Amino acid sequence: MNPAIRRVEYAVRGPIVTRALEIEQELRKGVPKPFTEVIKANIGDAHAMGQQPITFLRQVTALCLCPELMKDASLPSDAKERAQRLLEACGGQSVGSYSASPGIQMVRENVARYIERRDGGIPARSEDIFLSTGASDAIVNVLKLLVAGSGVSRTGVLIPIPQYPLYSAALAELEAVQVNYYLAEERCWALDVAELRRAVAEGIQAVSPCPLWVSPGQVQSRECIEAVIKFAYEEKLFLMADEVYQDNIYAEGSAFYSFKKVLKEMGPPYAEEVELASFHSISKGFMGECGLRGGYVEVVNMHPEVKAELSKLVSVRLCPPVIGQMILDTVVDPPKPGEPSYERFQAEKEAVLGALAEKARLTQEIFNQTPGIHCNPVQGAMYSFPRIDLPPRALAAAKEKKQAPDMFFCMRLLEETGICVVPGSGFGQKEGTFHFRMTILPPTEKLKILLEKLSAFYTKFVKEFS
Amino acid sequence: MNPAIRRVEYAVRGPIVTRALEIEQELRKGVPKPFTEVIKANIGDAHAMGQQPITFLRQVTALCLCPELMKDASLPSDAKERAQRLLEACGGQSVGSYSASPGIQMVRENVARYIERRDGGIPARSEDIFLSTGASDAIVNVLKLLVAGSGVSRTGVLIPIPQYPLYSAALAELEAVQVNYYLAEERCWALDVAELRRAVAEGIQAVSPCPLWVSPGQVQSRECIEAVIKFAYEEKLFLMADEVYQDNIYAEGSAFYSFKKVLKEMGPPYAEEVELASFHSISKGFMGECGLRGGYVEVVNMHPEVKAELSKLVSVRLCPPVIGQMILDTVVDPPKPGEPSYERFQAEKEAVLGALAEKARLTQEIFNQTPGIHCNPVQGAMYSFPRIDLPPRALAAAKEKKQAPDMFFCMRLLEETGICVVPGSGFGQKEGTFHFRMTILPPTEKLKILLEKLSAFYTKFVKEFS
Repeated sequence: MNPAIRRVEYAVRGPIVTRALEIEQELRKGVPKPFTEVIKANIGDAHAMGQQPITFLRQVTALCLCPELMKDASLPSDAKERAQRLLEACGGQSVGSYSASPGIQMVRENVARYIERRDGGIPARSEDIFLSTGASDAIVNVLKLLVAGSGVSRTGVLIPIPQYPLYSAALAELEAVQVNYYLAEERCWALDVAELRRAVAEGIQAVSPCPLWVSPGQVQSRECIEAVIKFAYEEKLFLMADEVYQDNIYAEGSAFYSFKKVLKEMGPPYAEEVELASFHSISKGFMGECGLRGGYVEVVNMHPEVKAELSKLVSVRLCPPVIGQMILDTVVDPPKPGEPSYERFQAEKEAVLGALAEKARLTQEIFNQTPGIHCNPVQGAMYSFPRIDLPPRALAAAKEKKQAPDMFFCMRLLEETGICVVPGSGFGQKEGTFHFRMTILPPTEKLKILLEKLSAFYTKFVKEFS
Repeated sequence: MNPAIRRVEYAVRGPIVTRALEIEQELRKGVPKPFTEVIKANIGDAHAMGQQPITFLRQVTALCLCPELMKDASLPSDAKERAQRLLEACGGQSVGSYSASPGIQMVRENVARYIERRDGGIPARSEDIFLSTGASDAIVNVLKLLVAGSGVSRTGVLIPIPQYPLYSAALAELEAVQVNYYLAEERCWALDVAELRRAVAEGIQAVSPCPLWVSPGQVQSRECIEAVIKFAYEEKLFLMADEVYQDNIYAEGSAFYSFKKVLKEMGPPYAEEVELASFHSISKGFMGECGLRGGYVEVVNMHPEVKAELSKLVSVRLCPPVIGQMILDTVVDPPKPGEPSYERFQAEKEAVLGALAEKARLTQEIFNQTPGIHCNPVQGAMYSFPRIDLPPRALAAAKEKKQAPDMFFCMRLLEETGICVVPGSGFGQKEGTFHFRMTILPPTEKLKILLEKLSAFYTKFVKEFS
């Protein structure tokens, strides 16, 4: 067996989730518990938490799957027209045929137009856009392309801590060397170039080239992005920007700047030389279509030969799921004012984003009322990552159970309240600090109860171990 | 850049397809050609060739995507009931939520029941079934799990020649050692254990353990499968059976035997000791739903620890596309006699399989009328792999162009007739023999014209180079 696979860990679906599924089974069998349901706040899965799908997206894809429905009078004409255009872009006018490996050309062009509008007119080219099976598939493909060498010349990949555990899992699978840099918790998880410098300097001791860098997904200021780009230029790092949360910016004064926009506006030598891959997904944003598996990567300044190899690599997996591609099309080219579906689409989109902003606020507020829990403002995305003070006796009890202290806390939380969150140790954290990650996705009323239950449990837990 | 990626080749989407796409662009721009359209007979993509989707599959998935359609009176009640059951098996009753990583439990159970019926009652367990993003995804995951070591202890993988180029591409990507064994063209591509023995003996010179074996996908006799299983037991090979064509058996006297059925019926020690992974897909069969990306692997006798690692590996990619899972559900649990959709479903399924059988017959008949073309009966699957005699002057002309002789032939064929087939060199062939691979999927009338045009071109080509 491949020993690299043994080293793969994926906390978001790790032991805590396995236990949560067992508890659900036990509840079904009537085992008495101090709660009636497990609330899975471990994963960014909006629909599982009750978020309703955006109607236009679903109408278009249903029409594509079953063109007989074109005669259903209840479906709006713009959904029918879109479905017709998408079907014409498919082989044999069927979603059942393979698309081109980098995706349906029409969808790639619509993604390029979307990126241009997002970035205030900076040109985007469809040939730089590769559609994918969710962002994770594209991230792994780009990593696979770039990781090489062995021993001390094995590629090191800089990743932010806390990180999305997919990164470390993919690196373990590829036997790349993970080089950690820490985000500054005390400054709302800001990225600090001095810390990047430290990480590269230390990383270079262990592995040789260290050419990659993975963006954290958190909201970063424009100044910070500029500094990172300069640093990447100096150190010849390939930039990987996880920008799946570009629609989810809630905090006042926060705005989304794409790495590409900043890069291009910086002018030479950065604009034409720093290599960048930016990832997006239909799983996050306001649509939350995780199960349909769609996404894309835009490559910027990638060497043409390397790009040709990327094209070849994606062709081996034939094509991304066509329904995911179609959802992406409707997301990047939504109904326009005056079209039949415009008002419903806008209302649904704003309702989702409005609720997320409210839930972000609520999370920060309730947690910070509890002594010992410290929660940064949730500026974007759909998670909070609160720090918890744990008393020494809790650390000793965890040690006895051979568990990380935050795993010990989260397991107890799950057993006693049914709330499933992920220990910070799965994401990485500074030595001696403890966190958990929780989504803000449950419906507002439920989230409120959950936050209060969790805070109360924390207080009781601290008391028990003091 | 990762040098392993450079070594990846995938003929089915290789240079010949790139050129075919260019020619299509040229035709669109009005460049004069001796033909009006490119016929892509390079890839097993049924819908692209005009095959119509099976209505029930599409109705169910459209309903799942857009539950508002439950009130559409034109959709049959059994499709609505199925959609309702599938939605209830999804988080938040939405196809937009992630499923469990190995797939929706209800679908895994239905797959297990399907396998039991297929194998005459031999038990199947849902926990041995992992749903996937097409068969290729599952094949790569199993390979990833098993390939290890470095230098002479690097895992060697036995693959049949001719082979599906995905295998060699995946092996190149994983830096596994490809160990070829040749199928016997003179006996209709039968698998010969003596040839397997030769390949293992030679392979062991180069690499150490050589623990895997990949089934060819062609129709094999029960005796042959038994011999392979005995051989795998002796040599401690892990069996990978590509069984995606289990529904496509046309030739009289041919029948599908699953490796699992034969294995279990052989009794001890084989039944409980030989490790097997069997792959299936929604892309092939009568449904041909390539674009929706669904499939599964059933693992048999896999060591529990290795299976736990496989579970972890699939969890990193979150989940297979939910729509593909739902299509799979309708395929393994189709409408039953008396249900509203039964008759339409059966008629559509039989029409597809009947047409494929007719096209298989036609292919063999027309090719074998042409001196110099030698075509085995197409017993199953959806391809022919005819051998062509090429005159020495053609070989010299190819050499001058630095092309493999069959690539030279296929390129000329494409440029002069618009017919796109894949050179045999992309699949592997015995030294000094030349082939091309072509699907039998175009509509019968079109296929007939295509076969005649291709045969006529071959005769003209041979004359030109004699």
